[in-house]
Amino acid sequence: MRSRPCDEWGTAMNPIGPQSDPIDLLPMDVAGRGSRVRGAMVAAAVEALFVTKPVNVRWLTGFTGSNGAVLIDERGLTLFTDGRYEEQASLETAAFGVEVDIVITRTTEAEAGSRIGRAATGIESHHLTLDRSAALSATASDPHFENVGPLVDQLRQQKDRGEVARLRLAAQIADRALADHEAELLRGGMTEQAFARSLESAMYTHGADAPSFDTIVASGPNSSRPHARPSSRVIGAGDLVVIDFGASVDGYGSDMTRTFVCGGHPTPDQEALYDAVLSAQTAGVAAVCAGANQVSIDHACRSVLAANDLADAFIHGTGHGIGLEIHEQPILSARSVGILAADLVVTVEPGAYVPGRGGVRVEDSVLVTADGCDPITHFPKGLVPWPLSRPTT
Amino acid sequence: MRSRPCDEWGTAMNPIGPQSDPIDLLPMDVAGRGSRVRGAMVAAAVEALFVTKPVNVRWLTGFTGSNGAVLIDERGLTLFTDGRYEEQASLETAAFGVEVDIVITRTTEAEAGSRIGRAATGIESHHLTLDRSAALSATASDPHFENVGPLVDQLRQQKDRGEVARLRLAAQIADRALADHEAELLRGGMTEQAFARSLESAMYTHGADAPSFDTIVASGPNSSRPHARPSSRVIGAGDLVVIDFGASVDGYGSDMTRTFVCGGHPTPDQEALYDAVLSAQTAGVAAVCAGANQVSIDHACRSVLAANDLADAFIHGTGHGIGLEIHEQPILSARSVGILAADLVVTVEPGAYVPGRGGVRVEDSVLVTADGCDPITHFPKGLVPWPLSRPTT
Repeated sequence: MRSRPCDEWGTAMNPIGPQSDPIDLLPMDVAGRGSRVRGAMVAAAVEALFVTKPVNVRWLTGFTGSNGAVLIDERGLTLFTDGRYEEQASLETAAFGVEVDIVITRTTEAEAGSRIGRAATGIESHHLTLDRSAALSATASDPHFENVGPLVDQLRQQKDRGEVARLRLAAQIADRALADHEAELLRGGMTEQAFARSLESAMYTHGADAPSFDTIVASGPNSSRPHARPSSRVIGAGDLVVIDFGASVDGYGSDMTRTFVCGGHPTPDQEALYDAVLSAQTAGVAAVCAGANQVSIDHACRSVLAANDLADAFIHGTGHGIGLEIHEQPILSARSVGILAADLVVTVEPGAYVPGRGGVRVEDSVLVTADGCDPITHFPKGLVPWPLSRPTT
Repeated sequence: MRSRPCDEWGTAMNPIGPQSDPIDLLPMDVAGRGSRVRGAMVAAAVEALFVTKPVNVRWLTGFTGSNGAVLIDERGLTLFTDGRYEEQASLETAAFGVEVDIVITRTTEAEAGSRIGRAATGIESHHLTLDRSAALSATASDPHFENVGPLVDQLRQQKDRGEVARLRLAAQIADRALADHEAELLRGGMTEQAFARSLESAMYTHGADAPSFDTIVASGPNSSRPHARPSSRVIGAGDLVVIDFGASVDGYGSDMTRTFVCGGHPTPDQEALYDAVLSAQTAGVAAVCAGANQVSIDHACRSVLAANDLADAFIHGTGHGIGLEIHEQPILSARSVGILAADLVVTVEPGAYVPGRGGVRVEDSVLVTADGCDPITHFPKGLVPWPLSRPTT
């Protein structure tokens, strides 16, 4: 990567960082997001916007309840939710200084529809169902809807400093949880399921709200299945072990994959497979930069693997944005179009999966900067369980 | 409840059951579900059906991947998924003996649309988004779509014996996990978050695939917030503690709420509040029977609470179906219409929430039978941490 400054929680020398670091999270600018959305609404030629996707509602207002929708129009922001969340909606939006009218209702679409006049109103057509759309139309007078799709999702790509701080803390928690498991990886003997549960438990201990997605621990022959779920297979010496996991803090998730050889004595073939993937991942990270074509990240990874006769072994995309969703825009793949912007956080995660030989994946999350990227995940990379993580002083 | 036979895993005398019971799960009749759906399609006057809701895809085929859709037409069942799931889709559908063509594609709607001719084709309008619907229409030749909404969801209400066995096992695992925490409830001193994490960890230990939803542990003043999330509040002697949680087995979740007084010495006022809710819950369970009006369950609970001057303190619905979704049809509330059928599994969960006084909720899941119901959850009910669960011999 082109830039690797010290960050708030780790240094290049001691990438995991001391466990007693004080955590002082920067605030998120939730209240300022409404005006960013209004800018995008002008560009999309809509005068109102009905936001229904839960993470978009959360991003825009701070409200985390399971039932919420927001109408943005000339009157301001209106948040619709039901009686269960009346108090929570007030508290959460006030905590972020978001100015919003809260409407308590069991029939959000009917309520929202009745407020929609002739203004061109954007709807989240990638999220709104046919039934909810029909309910909205039923009470709207002379409605004019525009399918704006992921308009808010696109704005969510760009992270503010408070969001980056939460992503970094989530990643640090995951780093620390993995650091607690060196003995288990050197010794073997745990099932994949038990290892996954232990890793998740350690994330809670280190301060996670929750795991950010279903932990993957895939060992031995399972390592060549990129989306294997933890099984009752016992991890044994000599197994490749692919560990793909993350923590969540305030809804922001981390995502990192490391691959080890249980016991710490890789075969030459395991080393060759690993080195090819690590070289691909390093090339992918090196290609990340504000202004870079998104497809170039995929190309950088894929060409290194192709040069190692592993073109057909890389059977998934190269990366994705990460934030309130564990997979969000942009998607980095051979079909990506578009340019990377600064302040995006994306994963770079090439892998090679060869049935009968094994599988390897290496993944980091990085913050896109003007001249490269800053790592969000810091755990040392190496087939032998992390000698680098030991104190260097 | 009107019938309470011994079930496979517990008895009325020792409701939690010994921890060493052998588990021999009855098979689920996944392969037989296609013909049930075809019957419903005839009733809905559609010749084809496009199933997109993931739990419906799973129920119909056994396939659990995150990207799947099924087209049912005169050629049979076609499952669309992407390359990540090619092997898994074959294995999972074959394991249940489901006859299905598997189509690997990145553009499911375009592929499915191209197979849709002039036949009236049902779509899951409660799930399908506007964008996916448009993609489906774009490649269909002269399409005729019917919004059938939750047609498959309605069939899923009725559980086969294999599904009931999984629901019972999930509930038993949750019962056992709670039984491990008597000391913590008698002693106090844990935070709500730590208690929730410990309960979840115990569910894994007892064999859960995962928690079936976000565990609620709400103590003291938090008990009067029905959807409180576990906080850093330390549970102390004299606190009401509402614990709402469940385990998941093969995708089938359990759901149970118990309320205790930490330390085991309730005040007269806590007892009065609890007794009112428990009486309401008992009345609700007693009203469950195949052929009963769904609204009568809600009415039974609500009238007991009203008789105790707690009508306004019961601020949510009375229950819901439970299966592959933690909240599924039928919804039992004051607005329910419809009749309960045999073989449904529903929750009965009245509560009373009085800010400044405290909150209580008691919830069981029950299997609807011809003459009443069988309990799925068996944990003893009482404000004092479960003396009933101690061995009686």
